[in-house]
Amino acid sequence: MYVGFIVGLVLGFILLVYGILVAGGSLLMFWDLPSVIITFGGSWCALMVSYPLSILAKMPTYFRIALFPPRLNAVDLIITLVSFAEKSRKEGLLALEDDIDSVEEPFLKKGLQCVVDSIDPELIRVILEIEIDEMASRHDANKKIFDDWAGLAPSFGMIGTLMGLVMMLVNLNDKAMVGPYLAVAIITTFYGAVLAYLVLTPLATNLDSITGEEILYKSIVVMGVLSLQSGDNPRILKQKLVSFLPPPMRVSLLDEKDV
Amino acid sequence: MYVGFIVGLVLGFILLVYGILVAGGSLLMFWDLPSVIITFGGSWCALMVSYPLSILAKMPTYFRIALFPPRLNAVDLIITLVSFAEKSRKEGLLALEDDIDSVEEPFLKKGLQCVVDSIDPELIRVILEIEIDEMASRHDANKKIFDDWAGLAPSFGMIGTLMGLVMMLVNLNDKAMVGPYLAVAIITTFYGAVLAYLVLTPLATNLDSITGEEILYKSIVVMGVLSLQSGDNPRILKQKLVSFLPPPMRVSLLDEKDV
Amino acid sequence: MYVGFIVGLVLGFILLVYGILVAGGSLLMFWDLPSVIITFGGSWCALMVSYPLSILAKMPTYFRIALFPPRLNAVDLIITLVSFAEKSRKEGLLALEDDIDSVEEPFLKKGLQCVVDSIDPELIRVILEIEIDEMASRHDANKKIFDDWAGLAPSFGMIGTLMGLVMMLVNLNDKAMVGPYLAVAIITTFYGAVLAYLVLTPLATNLDSITGEEILYKSIVVMGVLSLQSGDNPRILKQKLVSFLPPPMRVSLLDEKDV
Amino acid sequence: MYVGFIVGLVLGFILLVYGILVAGGSLLMFWDLPSVIITFGGSWCALMVSYPLSILAKMPTYFRIALFPPRLNAVDLIITLVSFAEKSRKEGLLALEDDIDSVEEPFLKKGLQCVVDSIDPELIRVILEIEIDEMASRHDANKKIFDDWAGLAPSFGMIGTLMGLVMMLVNLNDKAMVGPYLAVAIITTFYGAVLAYLVLTPLATNLDSITGEEILYKSIVVMGVLSLQSGDNPRILKQKLVSFLPPPMRVSLLDEKDV
Amino acid sequence: MYVGFIVGLVLGFILLVYGILVAGGSLLMFWDLPSVIITFGGSWCALMVSYPLSILAKMPTYFRIALFPPRLNAVDLIITLVSFAEKSRKEGLLALEDDIDSVEEPFLKKGLQCVVDSIDPELIRVILEIEIDEMASRHDANKKIFDDWAGLAPSFGMIGTLMGLVMMLVNLNDKAMVGPYLAVAIITTFYGAVLAYLVLTPLATNLDSITGEEILYKSIVVMGVLSLQSGDNPRILKQKLVSFLPPPMRVSLLDEKDV
Repeated sequence: MYVGFIVGLVLGFILLVYGILVAGGSLLMFWDLPSVIITFGGSWCALMVSYPLSILAKMPTYFRIALFPPRLNAVDLIITLVSFAEKSRKEGLLALEDDIDSVEEPFLKKGLQCVVDSIDPELIRVILEIEIDEMASRHDANKKIFDDWAGLAPSFGMIGTLMGLVMMLVNLNDKAMVGPYLAVAIITTFYGAVLAYLVLTPLATNLDSITGEEILYKSIVVMGVLSLQSGDNPRILKQKLVSFLPPPMRVSLLDEKDV
Repeated sequence: MYVGFIVGLVLGFILLVYGILVAGGSLLMFWDLPSVIITFGGSWCALMVSYPLSILAKMPTYFRIALFPPRLNAVDLIITLVSFAEKSRKEGLLALEDDIDSVEEPFLKKGLQCVVDSIDPELIRVILEIEIDEMASRHDANKKIFDDWAGLAPSFGMIGTLMGLVMMLVNLNDKAMVGPYLAVAIITTFYGAVLAYLVLTPLATNLDSITGEEILYKSIVVMGVLSLQSGDNPRILKQKLVSFLPPPMRVSLLDEKDV
Repeated sequence: MYVGFIVGLVLGFILLVYGILVAGGSLLMFWDLPSVIITFGGSWCALMVSYPLSILAKMPTYFRIALFPPRLNAVDLIITLVSFAEKSRKEGLLALEDDIDSVEEPFLKKGLQCVVDSIDPELIRVILEIEIDEMASRHDANKKIFDDWAGLAPSFGMIGTLMGLVMMLVNLNDKAMVGPYLAVAIITTFYGAVLAYLVLTPLATNLDSITGEEILYKSIVVMGVLSLQSGDNPRILKQKLVSFLPPPMRVSLLDEKDV
Repeated sequence: MYVGFIVGLVLGFILLVYGILVAGGSLLMFWDLPSVIITFGGSWCALMVSYPLSILAKMPTYFRIALFPPRLNAVDLIITLVSFAEKSRKEGLLALEDDIDSVEEPFLKKGLQCVVDSIDPELIRVILEIEIDEMASRHDANKKIFDDWAGLAPSFGMIGTLMGLVMMLVNLNDKAMVGPYLAVAIITTFYGAVLAYLVLTPLATNLDSITGEEILYKSIVVMGVLSLQSGDNPRILKQKLVSFLPPPMRVSLLDEKDV
Repeated sequence: MYVGFIVGLVLGFILLVYGILVAGGSLLMFWDLPSVIITFGGSWCALMVSYPLSILAKMPTYFRIALFPPRLNAVDLIITLVSFAEKSRKEGLLALEDDIDSVEEPFLKKGLQCVVDSIDPELIRVILEIEIDEMASRHDANKKIFDDWAGLAPSFGMIGTLMGLVMMLVNLNDKAMVGPYLAVAIITTFYGAVLAYLVLTPLATNLDSITGEEILYKSIVVMGVLSLQSGDNPRILKQKLVSFLPPPMRVSLLDEKDV
């Protein structure tokens, strides 16, 4: 994921520059500091009105998550859970205590700890599902910041263009300057569109699909941990958990009998 | 939240003024009273058709809430609830009676009072959940007023521009006046866009995120109060409530064993 | 509600007229019968294709409801229900029979009648909730007619403008007439926008908020009637019903102890 | 419904023709075969990519349904169900066997047959509700075809206009032809808008409201049939079923006592 | 489905070419490599930012599914399930073991295997429903890739047009080149619109309707398999399953008695 994200972003800008140069334009035509300030600065100000600073301060974190998404391997998780089920069948649930230390993913660790502590199954379900729900709604809220910015950027681009148009129309006498004036006016809309469609909207989509994977992973954990506690047959546990996966990913998990 | 809201609003307008001045324009070019009346007044009239005056009269209250949002500290709430659980374990639920007076947040107070009055748990849940649901739908309705205005403002901006265009086109003979006429026509669209994208839409988003925090806070209260009444172990209560929080906020609440 | 609705509508049109006159235009510039026919008539025809006449015939009723909304006072309702609870506690449910006649609101009347007739509580709930659900979906459908019209009006405005543009472009020789032709072409879009954004969309919003109040009122009735039948303590009944209200409206209902 | 549908469609086109003729245009200005092919043909091709031919082949059926909607009279249905309830109270459920033949509506027939066959109530509910759900989702899918076409038509109109603009701009030398060229370019957008806003969107809305009526009718059947089987008192059955109707339609069903 | 998909796609492009040639244009006017790179390449880069490469790599698979959709015949499925019900009634559930090998559809095979293995019915339901839910959400996510691209393509078309406008306006001196420059600027918007409205949006709709059929098919399997296990009467099983079908498809399944 890491590579495609960076390549897409960099290549996207290179293509735009190529499009300008090949048509005989120059990059200087597309640089106008006041336009940058109106589009980027203005939409950022609207974002400050929309969200408390403590939340906006987390935006770099979310950019980093898109760059280095957590590696959640559902196949490995199922293998782990099935092996735990086999072990606990032979040696009892408490035998899992030693394995918890080797588990790194905190959500799975928490679920297993609850099982070893013999907490009531319904309570485990409540604790884990609240955690998934709240995680999902937090991530949705964070993703929405980028979506909102993606909506504000072209709007401030348009505001900048309207400002340029008004000033141009008032000074319509100087015909020679109409073209350059209009060009500058249009640049804010261009800035807003590039910021929204090349950077912010794709970033929001990206965060959304990371959240989707995390929810899938944690749903498997919940079902696995509860099955573990109720002492399900490992083979049936595998059947249940495998249903979460797309068919091609099941191949590595199932031997012929299971298909 | 207070600071960012004001800074965003003020800085946003300063940036627009800067954009005008740096391009050699003057603020006077962007002031036209009839345009103000059409865009602001017209969209406000449409709002009066949309909502009863008694509801519109509450809009300043909502502006004030965005400026001075209620301080709802979920971490402190959990600490309080856990300490109550410990106390009630030792001294019984009635021992909480004295603590209720020191609680300031009215929703938590109401919930605790219900517990001390030994009201039936299912009834407590109903009373508290109706209150959350109705609060959420009331806040949604109030936020929607700003959203609706944000939709009407650019529409009335466009209506003003269409009016200006018609008048300009009928008087097309006077070529010298076409530019200034068009400039004035475009100003209503500019007003509508600034009102919508710098003020109203961000304000509605802001109110939405305040509501989200309030729902989270009150959901913790409901689960905490009901656990208190059912005599849950304080350690398990903490586990449950902590699931509502984002992982970084849990650190201060959990000691090593709990992680 | 009555006053704001009419004032908003009338004042909105006055502001538009003012905007025209102050800019040196005349109302005659904005009157063109064929444009009226295309925009209003055309969008009305599309509405006739969308909905059976029997439903469209009810539109004036909905306009009247927006003008004279039903007066549903939730505070009075709660006071009534609590007084009924006190009476039935002392004198039995049948004692309410005499009070039913003094109740005017038909939904509350029906609910109380069911109680006095000792109909099974689950059945009362079903009957009353079907009525609320069907009322809500009927009102939604009716509100959608105005929303649909609000979407069609600017579309037919645009169709009229496209027609005007085509005719103008074919007759481009007569330069002197281009301006007036274009002006007329734009007028249909202007008509569509005013119809949609000053009249229809606000009217639909208005109907929506009336429905919201009615649902709230009837939900209080359902919970109140069922509590009445199950013989709830009047003080607890008040607690339950008060949860439906916004905090400021509770003040008049609760004495110090209840807060 | 039949009359309004046809009148709306025909009158809509007449109004557009009137708008053209009264402005001194001619219908020939608005006829351009290649534009018809691009807008209608192109959007139809996109529809063929969207849906299998077996589904598109059903579109005339849906047009016919909009013209001749099924006559589902909820008031008559309730009268029938109540009379069945009275009969079965006196003579037993099996006495209804003879009445089933006189029932024409297949859904009611099926429900009554299930009752007479003494099928388990929960099973009857499952069978009938699956049928309603699947009917609703099928009708939604069919309605969506018209909605999708209504979205594609203006898009292909715009594609045609862009094509015309490109060709006109390349041949900008011949100033005399710019107007007519532009006129033809704009015609595709006009075609797309008329197809979408006068025909397809209203047709989709129409189908939607027919589905709504059918769902209401069948929901009454389900509740009626199940009440019949459980031997509900006819008066209570009437109360239940009447809750589905809007208040004005209840008048004919209820005698004074019931109100 | 196969034929219509290809015919729609090919015919759509032929119609656009015809529209160009009949208007006296040439295909060369519509070919501009830098515009291709900006619109297609730019929107593809934004897609790479939005989704990990491992997911984008599956897009050809989804294109192939639209071309060769799985043949899921619900009528045959019901016939098969009813015949299994008859057999298992006479010879017991284990008699189905031999038939499983002849079943090709993997989901039905899995369900039958579970029945023959006498897995607990609630567990079978959980396993099969998780599989349907996860399949639906995976297919939705995949379809959304095409939807997102369909949204990005016209946006990058607009970005290209803005770039062309800026460059044209800066070089406004050379009046002779304004037309051709503008023509090239508009081509990117044309490319974006054709890509979105002729290819991507219809493709996404197509995948959606394939998913809908698959969910219907698998829902019938779940209900059929569970009925099989609970030993339902084959005639009642047929009644239940037939409720999933549209009325015309039922004819072949039901003999006179069943109607």
